[in-house]
Amino acid sequence: MTNTDQDKIYTAALIIIGDEVLSGRTKDANTPYIAEKMNDAGVRLAEVRIIPDHAQTIIDTVNLLRAANDYVFTTGGIGPTHDDITAENVAAAFGVGLELSEAAYSDLLGYYKDESEITESRKKMAMIPVGAKLIENPVSGAPGINLGNVYVMAGVPKIMQAMFDSILPTLQGGAPVVSRSVTADLPESLIADGLAEVQKRHDDVAIGSYPKYQNGRFGTSLVCRGVNETSLGLVIDEIAELVKSLGEENPVIA
Amino acid sequence: MTNTDQDKIYTAALIIIGDEVLSGRTKDANTPYIAEKMNDAGVRLAEVRIIPDHAQTIIDTVNLLRAANDYVFTTGGIGPTHDDITAENVAAAFGVGLELSEAAYSDLLGYYKDESEITESRKKMAMIPVGAKLIENPVSGAPGINLGNVYVMAGVPKIMQAMFDSILPTLQGGAPVVSRSVTADLPESLIADGLAEVQKRHDDVAIGSYPKYQNGRFGTSLVCRGVNETSLGLVIDEIAELVKSLGEENPVIA
Repeated sequence: MTNTDQDKIYTAALIIIGDEVLSGRTKDANTPYIAEKMNDAGVRLAEVRIIPDHAQTIIDTVNLLRAANDYVFTTGGIGPTHDDITAENVAAAFGVGLELSEAAYSDLLGYYKDESEITESRKKMAMIPVGAKLIENPVSGAPGINLGNVYVMAGVPKIMQAMFDSILPTLQGGAPVVSRSVTADLPESLIADGLAEVQKRHDDVAIGSYPKYQNGRFGTSLVCRGVNETSLGLVIDEIAELVKSLGEENPVIA
Repeated sequence: MTNTDQDKIYTAALIIIGDEVLSGRTKDANTPYIAEKMNDAGVRLAEVRIIPDHAQTIIDTVNLLRAANDYVFTTGGIGPTHDDITAENVAAAFGVGLELSEAAYSDLLGYYKDESEITESRKKMAMIPVGAKLIENPVSGAPGINLGNVYVMAGVPKIMQAMFDSILPTLQGGAPVVSRSVTADLPESLIADGLAEVQKRHDDVAIGSYPKYQNGRFGTSLVCRGVNETSLGLVIDEIAELVKSLGEENPVIA
């Protein structure tokens, strides 16, 4: 990860491609992983879209989001089966075709040992968009693909994480986004008026208020995010004072 | 839930509003809940978007998706704090203002017992778009809102679920989407060629192939979804035969 331009705000979008997520069968586990890594990288995850395995939807979404963001990540749909249509539609989004990647084919051969094992379906995993680079898959056969600012990764979290970790050092980001918090055993509605005043005084820190409800009791986490640690420290102090003034004896400051 | 028109395909979109999900702090748990209930209801969850607490983004996303779908659900941003901006921006998307709901105010009063407890921030929870109906919140103070085909719900899963369950009987859907599956201890790339043939023969069933990777072994779940149970049964039988012919002795059929 190179933090080159501290003032520019870098953004990324994530496209989760898969009927299985929209049907509720599979719970997306990739968003939190990517989101957390983006904070350290100084890139804001600006939007996530979960879309079906539908060609035109993939093409349109990739084109819209790659124009609007510094980076686009996709997960899902890169395997050997008929419903794995991500690579061909990312290619279509860039107006290019697919070609057999010798490097990917060689990896497949290393994986399956014998050429006779490379069925048409398996060969499909070595077909990549013209001009694309491979993202290594250390777990199974199908590589990821990088074309322009779009990074096509597997949907299986273990594989996606390995791919993402290999991409991360190659991305450029701005100042890392730091997060700190104050947690109080008070309902957020009690804190709201004072909190709005704190937010008004500090527009370079984003303050989020997140209610918890456990065992019949309300609590609130007040999460502050920003790139300026001095401002962040001031805001945390002010919020800690606020919740103490409202009756919280031991706010948890993190 | 009224299943009125069995031929029409009803669709819904879900908008998850919250910086906390995009920062990775909060894992979305609402998508799987809504997705599963939609299947039974005969409504396809066509798209999910996770967007930030940003006014114009909320307005644009609500307007785009309410025009494209039968139903739009939103989660998050309906509380009393400064970062809860969903209600005002859904109102803006419909070109209406907010007004004090007497019913919601009366609920708040019932909840907080004394009018002196109803601060400006708490009163905000009773401000709803002109023309909107309330969705009861059985857990905490802030009600949900229904305006046109848009349903605005809490982000906290326990509250969201209660709200969603109260909405569900009022929605119209088509034929329920039924899901069945065959699971085999085979890599999906081995099944892929034959599976594509099965899919070609049955275009009224959507077949998804989902690899698993556990303890160094590959397995595959072949999930079939459709509204015609006879077709679904045929496809399941063909897939079971296919995986048996490829060496799976005990496919798990569900």
